[in-house]
Amino acid sequence: MSKDKVQIFDTTLRDGEQVPGCKLDAEQKLVIAERLDELGVDIIEAGFPISSPGDFKSVAEISDLVKNASVCGLTRAVKKDIEVAAEALKTAKKPRIHTGIGTSDSHIKYKFNSTREEIIERAISAVSYAKTFVEDVEFYAEDAGRTDNEFLARVCEAVVKAGATVLNIPDTTGYCLPEEYGAKIKYLKENVKGIHKATLSCHCHNDLGLATANSIAGVINGARQIECTINGIGERAGNTSLEEVVMIMRQHPSLNLDTNINSKLLYDTSRMVSEKMGMIVQPNKAIVGANAFAHSSGIHQDGVIKNRETYEIIDPADVGVNESSIVLTARSGRAALAYRAKIVGYELTKVQLDHAYQEFLKFADLHKEITDEDIPKIMEAANLDLASFS
Amino acid sequence: MSKDKVQIFDTTLRDGEQVPGCKLDAEQKLVIAERLDELGVDIIEAGFPISSPGDFKSVAEISDLVKNASVCGLTRAVKKDIEVAAEALKTAKKPRIHTGIGTSDSHIKYKFNSTREEIIERAISAVSYAKTFVEDVEFYAEDAGRTDNEFLARVCEAVVKAGATVLNIPDTTGYCLPEEYGAKIKYLKENVKGIHKATLSCHCHNDLGLATANSIAGVINGARQIECTINGIGERAGNTSLEEVVMIMRQHPSLNLDTNINSKLLYDTSRMVSEKMGMIVQPNKAIVGANAFAHSSGIHQDGVIKNRETYEIIDPADVGVNESSIVLTARSGRAALAYRAKIVGYELTKVQLDHAYQEFLKFADLHKEITDEDIPKIMEAANLDLASFS
Repeated sequence: MSKDKVQIFDTTLRDGEQVPGCKLDAEQKLVIAERLDELGVDIIEAGFPISSPGDFKSVAEISDLVKNASVCGLTRAVKKDIEVAAEALKTAKKPRIHTGIGTSDSHIKYKFNSTREEIIERAISAVSYAKTFVEDVEFYAEDAGRTDNEFLARVCEAVVKAGATVLNIPDTTGYCLPEEYGAKIKYLKENVKGIHKATLSCHCHNDLGLATANSIAGVINGARQIECTINGIGERAGNTSLEEVVMIMRQHPSLNLDTNINSKLLYDTSRMVSEKMGMIVQPNKAIVGANAFAHSSGIHQDGVIKNRETYEIIDPADVGVNESSIVLTARSGRAALAYRAKIVGYELTKVQLDHAYQEFLKFADLHKEITDEDIPKIMEAANLDLASFS
Repeated sequence: MSKDKVQIFDTTLRDGEQVPGCKLDAEQKLVIAERLDELGVDIIEAGFPISSPGDFKSVAEISDLVKNASVCGLTRAVKKDIEVAAEALKTAKKPRIHTGIGTSDSHIKYKFNSTREEIIERAISAVSYAKTFVEDVEFYAEDAGRTDNEFLARVCEAVVKAGATVLNIPDTTGYCLPEEYGAKIKYLKENVKGIHKATLSCHCHNDLGLATANSIAGVINGARQIECTINGIGERAGNTSLEEVVMIMRQHPSLNLDTNINSKLLYDTSRMVSEKMGMIVQPNKAIVGANAFAHSSGIHQDGVIKNRETYEIIDPADVGVNESSIVLTARSGRAALAYRAKIVGYELTKVQLDHAYQEFLKFADLHKEITDEDIPKIMEAANLDLASFS
């Protein structure tokens, strides 16, 4: 049975770039856009054209450059924004305008000093106006996570009628629990008239560490687009991590969902974005962290050496990492020491290993990490019968 | 109605420390243990005493030091391990031995070359033996995430009968989806005879970015302990982040769950562990990342300035962060510029702000971030009528 495709909407260059300390220059944005296209993302959100002259220029240049993906520009539900975005996107092969407005009571009251009826009118006007420029119009209901489902369904119904092709349901504050977010998508799927004409999209923030789980809950309940960034970067605690949602769908065949992403480029793309943005990826980041495939404890190393599948669910090569690194520390066991010693050239008998391991522990208690260069020193200190080494 | 308490089992010093490149010395471990006790964790897993002489010594010293929390030592289902752990824990006010064995078919076959019946016997023996030393014995069913529920329930029933007070159900490989993990906990809660005598515990790994969501699914379905680490550190992609699960329970009163954690110490504890371990926390880390409460985009900044609740779900002071920083970048809007300009001493009229904002955008397109020191330069370049400044 063929799997349902989930569209990957990458917003590294828009929501991701909205991060203190990581502004990209125009050239860097082009390089990243080209890589995202190669990676296989379906939509590249390239920027917010009206926000600055630099951003306008980048969206225009990316529109020129990108071969396969749709190129998308963000706007508020404001005429001028939409005109400027349409202008920036005019050379794109597949242009998309992404317009919208806040729909939660908190946004309606404090941000717009408006009413629900007025917000629906503004949403319809924005989508209708965007449709005069492009066919593909995505509507975002900002703070949908805190918008009551009944009103949200009314907004969605109105904008689908006005021609919206994609409905973005953002958990703007990162507050939702997966069950709640999934239930919201399910409610819309079941209660918005004409919903078959549009794609529901998940846009989750990570303030409570749940962006990935919420996005997956969304697609399980009928969404078919995920908005995400490389390394999960973005404002505050960031957005959904592209690499995480892609690999969850790949590793869980029972979900019956897949994407167009070439996962072998994930690790390299992660490094590239991290370097260009100057945004560090922590070593324990899922999928792309430096330690994601490193095993250092004795129990685990022993298991991996006996059979990789004991502890590893992803073959590192599938995400572009060359091998599981078995790293030696004071927590490593005999098996790990024997494994690395063998790589360096020492084939140890059981008795030799016992001796060497005692020396190893003393050495390891003094050092943070033991490299291959340290192994000969440990062997020497262990005073083994060197003649027996291969 | 009083909330159910979820025990926080911190394993920063055991599972967290099993990380390439982050070995702590004895003194650092003591400082962290003291802080964890102050933070209010219920159990401190201090180490794996048999694994090295240094680890034994640390567990013993932490046992001496800790005033409130239980102190726990890890063992395999091996007599010698248990004896050594009991010895290391002997001065602890509330000692706990954490013993266990792999229960998935993959572990039974490849790691132990054993059978299901033999594994149950070894589990019972280990728990019974540990009970001869301490009252509080936690049992881990390693790779429970990939163990079929029926066999897992049999193992649990047997060890509860043997005296286990806590049942740790680890998703060792970080493979489970939240629904699956929650269903596993629910199954055990409903099918293990005598389950009321023991606490079910979640121990989730983050290989697919789901550790936090899985742990929350666990407590929603009846677990009452979460095993976690500061900053989510740990082998590979790490463990469940303590700060994330604690704040999810706090921010979602409808879950009706709470912990004993003093959340005001979270940020400072995160920094302390990061520095001592030399393990970087990425800026977009939830709750404790440098940017977790920073707003830089115009739309968001405008909202936060009008009403904090528009975009922030957590009051930064609740986790020990002093204020939301409104950071200026090329994505910032007029409201943010006006806000920071006012802090520096410029009270701008609308017309002045328009002028200043044009200069600000030019300046911002050239710089990654604009500090308060840059504001006077921007004002000067804007050539405003200085007499009108306050």
